[in-house]
Amino acid sequence: MRSALITIGDEILIGQVTDTNAVWISKQLNKIGVRVEEMVTVSDEAGQITATLDRLMGRYDLLIMTGGLGPTKDDITKQTLAKYFDSKLVSHPESLDRIRAFLKERGRAVIESNLRQAEVPELCRPLLNNHGSAPGMWFEKEGSILISLPGVPYEMKGLMTDHVIPSIREKVEVPGVVHRTIMTQGVPESYLAEMIKDWAASLPECIKLAYLPRPGIVRLRLTVVDKCAQEAEQLLEVNIDKLLDIIGKHVFGYDDISLEDALGKLLKERKLKVASAESCTGGNIARLLTSVPGSSAYFKGSVIAYDNQIKSRVLGVDPEIIESEGAVSKKVVEQMALGVCQNLGTQTSMATSGIAGPDGGTEEKPVGTTWICVCHEGKTYAKQYLFWGTRERVIDQASFTAMQLLRRLLLNSL
Amino acid sequence: MRSALITIGDEILIGQVTDTNAVWISKQLNKIGVRVEEMVTVSDEAGQITATLDRLMGRYDLLIMTGGLGPTKDDITKQTLAKYFDSKLVSHPESLDRIRAFLKERGRAVIESNLRQAEVPELCRPLLNNHGSAPGMWFEKEGSILISLPGVPYEMKGLMTDHVIPSIREKVEVPGVVHRTIMTQGVPESYLAEMIKDWAASLPECIKLAYLPRPGIVRLRLTVVDKCAQEAEQLLEVNIDKLLDIIGKHVFGYDDISLEDALGKLLKERKLKVASAESCTGGNIARLLTSVPGSSAYFKGSVIAYDNQIKSRVLGVDPEIIESEGAVSKKVVEQMALGVCQNLGTQTSMATSGIAGPDGGTEEKPVGTTWICVCHEGKTYAKQYLFWGTRERVIDQASFTAMQLLRRLLLNSL
Repeated sequence: MRSALITIGDEILIGQVTDTNAVWISKQLNKIGVRVEEMVTVSDEAGQITATLDRLMGRYDLLIMTGGLGPTKDDITKQTLAKYFDSKLVSHPESLDRIRAFLKERGRAVIESNLRQAEVPELCRPLLNNHGSAPGMWFEKEGSILISLPGVPYEMKGLMTDHVIPSIREKVEVPGVVHRTIMTQGVPESYLAEMIKDWAASLPECIKLAYLPRPGIVRLRLTVVDKCAQEAEQLLEVNIDKLLDIIGKHVFGYDDISLEDALGKLLKERKLKVASAESCTGGNIARLLTSVPGSSAYFKGSVIAYDNQIKSRVLGVDPEIIESEGAVSKKVVEQMALGVCQNLGTQTSMATSGIAGPDGGTEEKPVGTTWICVCHEGKTYAKQYLFWGTRERVIDQASFTAMQLLRRLLLNSL
Repeated sequence: MRSALITIGDEILIGQVTDTNAVWISKQLNKIGVRVEEMVTVSDEAGQITATLDRLMGRYDLLIMTGGLGPTKDDITKQTLAKYFDSKLVSHPESLDRIRAFLKERGRAVIESNLRQAEVPELCRPLLNNHGSAPGMWFEKEGSILISLPGVPYEMKGLMTDHVIPSIREKVEVPGVVHRTIMTQGVPESYLAEMIKDWAASLPECIKLAYLPRPGIVRLRLTVVDKCAQEAEQLLEVNIDKLLDIIGKHVFGYDDISLEDALGKLLKERKLKVASAESCTGGNIARLLTSVPGSSAYFKGSVIAYDNQIKSRVLGVDPEIIESEGAVSKKVVEQMALGVCQNLGTQTSMATSGIAGPDGGTEEKPVGTTWICVCHEGKTYAKQYLFWGTRERVIDQASFTAMQLLRRLLLNSL
């Protein structure tokens, strides 16, 4: 099944909003063997939307369109589709009930624009939106399926999961492509490529290798084409085992598991409680750890000690050491890591202190200089890094490096 | 000047990576009056790249292409462009010097793949990359400019800022479109539309209004078309003044300023120091505040009290109150807000305690229930909310609501 995605929104073309929907939808379609061959973004204009439909309907088996279904006047997708399919708007009773119930539950007034959200072209199959007011719409014409979904990501995701994926899955043959992604942290892309070049050269021709770097993380994606699923899985397994012999200690998981999730699973398995003492990362480690549902099982809390006073006052760092060595120093991060364990009552911790930039660098300690310490049952391991790039990038790299060092400390692979 | 953007990468089509480059480039082009009319994403295949160039060269004045310039084998853009323009690869001396210097500075080995990064098709104008190894490339043919840039966002941004924007700006006439964005927090999109519907109906025809919601934030974008810049500015000013009479207390700024930046500016102006005591937001408020360069001028630190023990132990919340009222309660957030001021030595603070989900909700306190308290010089203001959506969304809404409440407390507009 061949597919294309259409995103509608001036806000994307003028650069005000990032389209995260297209990538999410591709990923879901890919999992069930549907290949996305094109992504297009067009403006909130009836003419442009119609021209795009004219071009793509009949050419692809499946078109998924997002955006332009909001309650306000600038949203025109529904009206445009009604005209395109020459079908009048009618109210979808189930959606109407849901909207009324939702407003009542929240004690909000029922306003006309909310109720109009339940209207859809008579011709389509309406898809009940369990996460918002605008229903999805399923059209079929000229052998193509066209699905229109709201642009609000969590509403779109709910509709995809509740309706679209299950219906499409029934129509698709067995996937002919198998992917596996190996998640690594700690080695830059070009050095990783150098480390594994012999292994990469020895890969059978049907396995394609791609490098997908993110700040602090490199993902290696292996794709097997034109093999039956079982054979592909076996081939991948054998070759991944060989890869682990070379870079095993840098691998924290597979298939887009996040490092915070991988670390969380390890902490939970070991029944450990963790805390962080953060200066330059400013709460980013805590945020990443707590972004995982159920993280309260192992995350106890953090002290964000941005000001040096807090480092001494709450974490017990010796002010004389801050004075003599500087806040970005080995002794300071060690005392931060030990101090947060003691103050928050955990066995395990991470601490960061660095210069995130863009200002504050010196010749001796340029922007990006970061000390990281990880600690387990009183044993500490501290290391200095020189991260590069923007403030955001330095913070991300420092956060991921701290989490990976803690994993490796717990696994005795430092 | 009409333009289109081409993103190259299988990783985007299979949904592994979100394309944030296209939106950033559009925004920059928009600022200098260049309209992006199309965004296309294609795969890392020479055939697809060439077909896309065949379709778009000559049709647009400017094409900007990102991706596929990395050091590894799966990156084929440069080779494909060399073939497309029938021009052999030669080493760009300035880029080569930069790569050698960079590796030396970091004490890294010089590997062949790093040096090959300095090669470009002889025909192009190479653009020195000050943030990485692969230079950008500027081609001209059939009246179209084609610029190829690395896909790594901060390298792409550096090249855009250093070379592309200044060169393009020289070629563009005075922009015919003026945008202004009003940033609001605290009122959902449909209720905001209801509040301002008379004002919206009274807008002159040349002003277009769009609603751009994000979790916890709604942006109102006003666009003036076909007016001279000065006249457009005046029209906008008059109409925005009228809007402020209606929703002024919900407005925290203009033109994509972030709430963390707006709050930061206010704190700095008042010479205040702020701290946060976070339970359900898990460090997200601290992370947002510290994402702003120079935030150490007003941000002192935070206590992430995920575990109830930390609420009592570090923030001095009465354990009996946690027992009797629950951790998600008015008294607990008030004590957290006061406690963090005392413990970290600030006049000003924010505190959050809620159920971010997906588990942990009860009939009485469903997922999304959140208490927020803001505090200034011992005066507290606490309020209960029921946020909805995913865990990430609840955390975002709680974080932005806390920051906006603190702004309004400081401005006496609560």
